[in-house]
Amino acid sequence: MLKVSIIGATGYAGAELLAILHRHPQVDIAHITSESNTGKEISELYPHFAGIYDMKLESLSDIEKIGADSDFIFIALPHGHAMDVGKKLEKLPVRIIDLGADYRFADTKIYETWYNVEHTHRNAQRVYGLAEIYREDIRTAKIIGNAGCFTTASILALAPLVRHHLIDVGTIIVDAASGVSGAGRSLKLGNHFAELYDNFKAYNVAKHRHTPEIEQALEDLSGEKIVISFTPHLVPMSRGILATCYAKIKDTRTIDAAFQKMYGNEKFIRLLGRGAYPETKFVRGSNYCDIGWHIDERTNRVIVLSAIDNLVKGAAGQAVQNFNIAAGFDEDTALDVVPLYP
Amino acid sequence: MLKVSIIGATGYAGAELLAILHRHPQVDIAHITSESNTGKEISELYPHFAGIYDMKLESLSDIEKIGADSDFIFIALPHGHAMDVGKKLEKLPVRIIDLGADYRFADTKIYETWYNVEHTHRNAQRVYGLAEIYREDIRTAKIIGNAGCFTTASILALAPLVRHHLIDVGTIIVDAASGVSGAGRSLKLGNHFAELYDNFKAYNVAKHRHTPEIEQALEDLSGEKIVISFTPHLVPMSRGILATCYAKIKDTRTIDAAFQKMYGNEKFIRLLGRGAYPETKFVRGSNYCDIGWHIDERTNRVIVLSAIDNLVKGAAGQAVQNFNIAAGFDEDTALDVVPLYP
Amino acid sequence: MLKVSIIGATGYAGAELLAILHRHPQVDIAHITSESNTGKEISELYPHFAGIYDMKLESLSDIEKIGADSDFIFIALPHGHAMDVGKKLEKLPVRIIDLGADYRFADTKIYETWYNVEHTHRNAQRVYGLAEIYREDIRTAKIIGNAGCFTTASILALAPLVRHHLIDVGTIIVDAASGVSGAGRSLKLGNHFAELYDNFKAYNVAKHRHTPEIEQALEDLSGEKIVISFTPHLVPMSRGILATCYAKIKDTRTIDAAFQKMYGNEKFIRLLGRGAYPETKFVRGSNYCDIGWHIDERTNRVIVLSAIDNLVKGAAGQAVQNFNIAAGFDEDTALDVVPLYP
Amino acid sequence: MLKVSIIGATGYAGAELLAILHRHPQVDIAHITSESNTGKEISELYPHFAGIYDMKLESLSDIEKIGADSDFIFIALPHGHAMDVGKKLEKLPVRIIDLGADYRFADTKIYETWYNVEHTHRNAQRVYGLAEIYREDIRTAKIIGNAGCFTTASILALAPLVRHHLIDVGTIIVDAASGVSGAGRSLKLGNHFAELYDNFKAYNVAKHRHTPEIEQALEDLSGEKIVISFTPHLVPMSRGILATCYAKIKDTRTIDAAFQKMYGNEKFIRLLGRGAYPETKFVRGSNYCDIGWHIDERTNRVIVLSAIDNLVKGAAGQAVQNFNIAAGFDEDTALDVVPLYP
Repeated sequence: MLKVSIIGATGYAGAELLAILHRHPQVDIAHITSESNTGKEISELYPHFAGIYDMKLESLSDIEKIGADSDFIFIALPHGHAMDVGKKLEKLPVRIIDLGADYRFADTKIYETWYNVEHTHRNAQRVYGLAEIYREDIRTAKIIGNAGCFTTASILALAPLVRHHLIDVGTIIVDAASGVSGAGRSLKLGNHFAELYDNFKAYNVAKHRHTPEIEQALEDLSGEKIVISFTPHLVPMSRGILATCYAKIKDTRTIDAAFQKMYGNEKFIRLLGRGAYPETKFVRGSNYCDIGWHIDERTNRVIVLSAIDNLVKGAAGQAVQNFNIAAGFDEDTALDVVPLYP
Repeated sequence: MLKVSIIGATGYAGAELLAILHRHPQVDIAHITSESNTGKEISELYPHFAGIYDMKLESLSDIEKIGADSDFIFIALPHGHAMDVGKKLEKLPVRIIDLGADYRFADTKIYETWYNVEHTHRNAQRVYGLAEIYREDIRTAKIIGNAGCFTTASILALAPLVRHHLIDVGTIIVDAASGVSGAGRSLKLGNHFAELYDNFKAYNVAKHRHTPEIEQALEDLSGEKIVISFTPHLVPMSRGILATCYAKIKDTRTIDAAFQKMYGNEKFIRLLGRGAYPETKFVRGSNYCDIGWHIDERTNRVIVLSAIDNLVKGAAGQAVQNFNIAAGFDEDTALDVVPLYP
Repeated sequence: MLKVSIIGATGYAGAELLAILHRHPQVDIAHITSESNTGKEISELYPHFAGIYDMKLESLSDIEKIGADSDFIFIALPHGHAMDVGKKLEKLPVRIIDLGADYRFADTKIYETWYNVEHTHRNAQRVYGLAEIYREDIRTAKIIGNAGCFTTASILALAPLVRHHLIDVGTIIVDAASGVSGAGRSLKLGNHFAELYDNFKAYNVAKHRHTPEIEQALEDLSGEKIVISFTPHLVPMSRGILATCYAKIKDTRTIDAAFQKMYGNEKFIRLLGRGAYPETKFVRGSNYCDIGWHIDERTNRVIVLSAIDNLVKGAAGQAVQNFNIAAGFDEDTALDVVPLYP
Repeated sequence: MLKVSIIGATGYAGAELLAILHRHPQVDIAHITSESNTGKEISELYPHFAGIYDMKLESLSDIEKIGADSDFIFIALPHGHAMDVGKKLEKLPVRIIDLGADYRFADTKIYETWYNVEHTHRNAQRVYGLAEIYREDIRTAKIIGNAGCFTTASILALAPLVRHHLIDVGTIIVDAASGVSGAGRSLKLGNHFAELYDNFKAYNVAKHRHTPEIEQALEDLSGEKIVISFTPHLVPMSRGILATCYAKIKDTRTIDAAFQKMYGNEKFIRLLGRGAYPETKFVRGSNYCDIGWHIDERTNRVIVLSAIDNLVKGAAGQAVQNFNIAAGFDEDTALDVVPLYP
């Protein structure tokens, strides 16, 4: 049994982690923290945990003790806070999986530019936490910077095409849509039920912070400098991301093969095939990323569609997948679930 | 390993059964059937099963062979069809859990009156499949008539009060609301998304078929003849039932104790307590029934609120709970899941 | 042209008032106020008004001037604030329609008990603003205490039965459900989209403040003391209220006639008839109250169903209806709209 | 007063037409037709019309008589049927506004290719019914081929940029999303509430029939051959379309001016400005098209966002706007309504 703690357990990603780890046969939860709700039981904040978890939320003020008690720590804090935790735990054997952005960038200057925060842990031993691409590095990493939600859907959709140089990378556009849980549990007018119901909108056009994260992974795969357009939209639903990705085709013939080659043995990627339409509901509650693609001969573009559950493959599920890899467990331990449908 | 078959696997309850049984360590799926989709793979009809189930749907025309191959058969057919299956399997050792109404009534005349169908298997050895009340009978039953969705929520809410004669049974009113999956997957205008979205309505007032089923269980508990008012409503959501139950109080003092006594050791009943508000989302995807109750001193009424997932505790989860009891497994095998939230 | 001002224009009811009054051929908007957004244009807060209204929000600090400028003032403030405004305008000729609770009760002690606030304007000349019952008094009232949303649906459903003594008033139960806009635009966790989506719950059981308001009107109609049970529920939708009302029948034969007699000539009440099912979507955006009723011979209960749009007939539309009566206009001026469907 | 008939009044667009025309002071409805519901009252099919419309649905079998009785005929039939009606009415003075696709294309071969139907009325005197671009032709046209829903949002978003040659037309991508009412009232599994709720998906990638319609209008504006990528998505909501349009910029400096120049005086286009985010709910129930645009300097792309109500500016509202122009009324007669919010 490994001892695992969750720093920032009361956001949606933290709660999803708790839900997933409840199924994990080799995990004991050591500590869960929340600064704003220290001392409360998690089930006071999330009544769906009633009778399942009755642990009390602690403060992270004594993070060194938490670190000493834990084999692995998951961090689900707003960006800018994980690097403080990471730095304090640098000398301890505990390994870290950060669900935020602090450890996602190889080049911390990119982070600083897009997040407008000074990076205070630049030399951290870290790896980008997207198993389908960086699996080998994840096995031994001290710190895993878990991939973001939009980025996971976007990178997985485009990776085979970029790796095999089948598209003109200067023409990539990712148009994506997410359910509201991606915006977190904090209150704002845009997430008020009455405002969002029967409503659809774009946001953060040309400036969403997942843009450079997608570019970084695609550059790793292609070896080329890549600049993309990324547009997020908000869908009046709880969970799910669909990414619709466009690019001009350089070589049509091997597109199907490229997907098959890269993902044929991946447990969590379901290739629905050419002409198929992933739907977010078909992956709801699961760690799957469903992918379909379309060749438009009129425009010589490929359109790749990918669907994930933003809280699972886009956050907590991916974190547990990374944890399983890092800890040497079967990659699908605790993740082998059927999507909840309808 | 037990061999299990599902007759009528392509409705929502059948699909939910498949999803739950995927988690069951002691079950092999032997056959799944669908008359309208014979020969197709289940994942063609339910793409969320892609990569999980690739079994082909068979016809139930050779039900005797299916019965001979199976230790247990779950039936998820429209009412009126299960009794044919049950009759044909009468001599085989296979045991049956019917998710429909055919085997729910001790007095088949009540069934015939409310369902307007002749009952053709009156002498079947059967038990009503609501474990919290009929657990001992379920252990050995040949046929289990799995309790309905509204009925489960209603009976569980009222059972402690009726058993201990704490309310005036002539004043019972159950006002309940269900998500749309309760109406099944077949198409009708009232379930068209555009018609139901941003909409709320009652239906089948004073004539819903779950009424006599509730009455039967309450009569069993109280020993009195009981006639209730039951009103179902349709909520623009996928899953979930909330029952709001009213009755005049005869004895206030022991109400809390009655709930505690009856359900204190029940795995799937979460007593949220007096003054508490169950929400359907807190049980979504799980087999829990959450219960809260309120004493209104102005009117001398008790109002009991209970929430279930109509497809789990209201259908497939309850069926697996009954199966576990009948087969001698731990009652929560395959059912020990955290609700999907948010 | 009459000059009309709105005190508290930035809540949902205030905004709906603006939307309705835009259609009114005999109204000029003189002032609109908001204390938290003074100086802003209304379309900054509600972009759907872009190009329609560009007025600036004022403070109500100089309410006497606003009162002097206006023929009518609509107040859409939280309870407890309207009575201050009403008192300050007592000597001016301006007439007042308050959408809140301050002027709804003939007996201010009831208000003080349920709202936990001292009433500071007890002797105000006021009338309860539900036109179908109090029309004649509304014509000349100085202050109209506009009926609440749940109360409107509940009273209109039960009024004919109570007036004609066709039911046992000791058995009345109103079980009602509302869309989220009824909870207003302020932020709270329960109204967060992700929390409420695919969710249904009751709230304020046995203590909702609309209870004594319903009782007051029913007592006026019947001449008897009446105590009812009232339970509100929250539906994951924007707009709409459905009230499901139960009572034991004293005289079945004249129920249909009672509805016809009381409402046969009412413009805004649509009698769908015995056995009919009102749906909230069929009245969305309109001032209609749709009513259907059911006789349950098994239980000797009548179940009356009524549907309104909580922001229109339950708030702003009713206020304009009252205004039209008070000002001598046709009662449906600005209210003669087709519901928005689907 | 003009006499107006609606051929195919029982789809969502036909019903919306009836709702809008109810507000039109110079219109009498002469006939409404439905082949599948001949003889029924419209309010049997759409109870929201109860007390508003009690007309009976007729057959279109005697279309010549209907034509002779009418000054204008709106056709809301599935594609392929309007051209029969149009042909039969060719010699009558009645003017026609077709909400379907039959009369949208100047080149009927394009229609035949994309709709897979032979065009039987090729020489019809017709104009494309998008007032902001073809207003002058609409005034006198015999037949107006009302613009489609996705096309209206897409064309209006891109028109100023294309007309003034500010973008590279070879790089245009339109990624759009629609509420479910756009798919009509007929039943199919994909529109079943339980299937679509909490779900998001693309459909008809690279083959949606609105593609050539968008191209036709953009070619008219630019004088160049244009081939675009168009991808529709289905949003779990009733009404609304958001189009997110991408193109490489040729000249950034005059983009703002181009929008202002083309739309500055348009009643139904609200320019929210550079950096703004239209939301579908801000136009719900209204004939507005809200537009915002964003310049992405990293990629040298412009992203234009436009929002409409698919049943109003995308169908029935636009039809009435065209009717007003053709009949010589103020263009906003019956269309001067505030969007329904929230």
